[in-house]
Amino acid sequence: MTIKVFGHKSPDTDSTGSPIIWAWYLNEVEGRDAAPALLGEPNTEAAFMLQRWGLDKPQIIDGVGAGDPVVIVDTNNPAELPADINAADITAIIDHHKLVGGIETKGPIDITVRPVACTATIMHDLMGAEATKMPDPIKGAMLSCILSDTLEFRSPTTTDADRKLAETLAADLGVDIPGYAAEMFAAKSDVSAFSDAELLRMDSKEYEVGGKKFRVSVLETTSPETVLARKASLVAAMDEVAREDGVDQVLLFVVDILREEATMLVPNDLTRQVAEKSFATVCGDDTVVLPGIVSRKKQIIPNLAV
Amino acid sequence: MTIKVFGHKSPDTDSTGSPIIWAWYLNEVEGRDAAPALLGEPNTEAAFMLQRWGLDKPQIIDGVGAGDPVVIVDTNNPAELPADINAADITAIIDHHKLVGGIETKGPIDITVRPVACTATIMHDLMGAEATKMPDPIKGAMLSCILSDTLEFRSPTTTDADRKLAETLAADLGVDIPGYAAEMFAAKSDVSAFSDAELLRMDSKEYEVGGKKFRVSVLETTSPETVLARKASLVAAMDEVAREDGVDQVLLFVVDILREEATMLVPNDLTRQVAEKSFATVCGDDTVVLPGIVSRKKQIIPNLAV
Repeated sequence: MTIKVFGHKSPDTDSTGSPIIWAWYLNEVEGRDAAPALLGEPNTEAAFMLQRWGLDKPQIIDGVGAGDPVVIVDTNNPAELPADINAADITAIIDHHKLVGGIETKGPIDITVRPVACTATIMHDLMGAEATKMPDPIKGAMLSCILSDTLEFRSPTTTDADRKLAETLAADLGVDIPGYAAEMFAAKSDVSAFSDAELLRMDSKEYEVGGKKFRVSVLETTSPETVLARKASLVAAMDEVAREDGVDQVLLFVVDILREEATMLVPNDLTRQVAEKSFATVCGDDTVVLPGIVSRKKQIIPNLAV
Repeated sequence: MTIKVFGHKSPDTDSTGSPIIWAWYLNEVEGRDAAPALLGEPNTEAAFMLQRWGLDKPQIIDGVGAGDPVVIVDTNNPAELPADINAADITAIIDHHKLVGGIETKGPIDITVRPVACTATIMHDLMGAEATKMPDPIKGAMLSCILSDTLEFRSPTTTDADRKLAETLAADLGVDIPGYAAEMFAAKSDVSAFSDAELLRMDSKEYEVGGKKFRVSVLETTSPETVLARKASLVAAMDEVAREDGVDQVLLFVVDILREEATMLVPNDLTRQVAEKSFATVCGDDTVVLPGIVSRKKQIIPNLAV
């Protein structure tokens, strides 16, 4: 039976590229029968990556069957996976996020979690010498995943391993990193096709702190003014999304990749209180600029307070 | 602050040796400040290993402080760890058991789980070329862990990686595997110092199946007759231990390492029912012999039925 390899819901570039990379490895190096899959439409940056490297868009699935062999990449969080994930035959997990608990396996399996910026970086390490066999589109996907997750090495999650691997891949492929990253970020910044609710859920994780539940949404963009021009309708959608998703509030951080700062929307008392307690800052009318804040994992979540 | 490296409660050879091996690696190769620790007295085989290789018995601890840096080896099960484990600063997990969920980390950390017989085998792989720096006592601990967890390659959990590594280490140390394994198993078989309740809890894991909770106890021995001579008092202790530990029944499997079979105690209707449903067998008066059954992980737990 074909092993399905997939990342988290609302797939970004790493959760789209890493399944393609690992399915390639399982098929071509290990001689297994594997296929990448997606738990939703890839975002605009991930779609750009697929097109740029001539990769087929993986099949979009909305669940897994009991006993289906699967490999989970780029997450270990059941909330970001199909509801029936623990009924599947999970054969491996490759991830770079904190362990949240909740995934259970039927027997001992291969699990590799490393504190690096990108799942693809771990995969390169796991491949060892076999990595040289990667064809250009797979190398291109790997490079794209690293540039996306590190925001072209700007994110504090970036490690030497991520950076060196990206530089080696780029040299090998004859890709100019600043030019290619600019194309990727422009693709990610084109949010015109999305509704406000879609934008709020696009790159979003739920967290609980101080007895309150938040959907912490991040929009990484090179054109924050495009997003902030929609501020009024985004704020209106925040209440609706919060209600529908059963959280107390949506926290939206518009990350300016190039200026390396985030603008947080603070339209009401609870969001203002979170902003001021978490980042020791003073809010403006309905937004607050947080200089240097670009990483949810390293900078937003660890500081979150109510 | 010193990083404490420890395995599961009721430490066997792998949960005693692996913390010593990994603390050596962190100290001597990575230049960190680490110390092995134990969550209880080592069993008689583990104590033999310490003495044979001139290794100090690690400090026995009964809890961890909030924020204390720790490395967890040979388990990922909170039930086998201090109650306050999630308050510690868990910096790495190295294990070879199924993922049970329940451990949470504050950020992304190094997690390596592999489906091999022994934690020490994974550690050797993680060390890469640095493994050649291991002094003889560390190599001896590694060899002991593998021979213990594989029952000298008899257990179906044994992989090529475990066997080859053990053979290389033994050749390197000038150790005769059959002779050394026999000494280890003789040490493990000397259960004279333990009360019946201690024997039932010595190598024991809790499992729930069909709405019933069991403490599944395994005693690996080269002298099953020594244990079975205590049958009457063991059966009496089973009820007491079950009550104290809040389980429905203790299932005791006396594993004859050399004959590669298990004798299960079936003193009442529930244990008889479990034996007959799980192993398609017919019980004798108060015991049943299960030919070929030596591994709780691969053979007992996956078959358990009520």
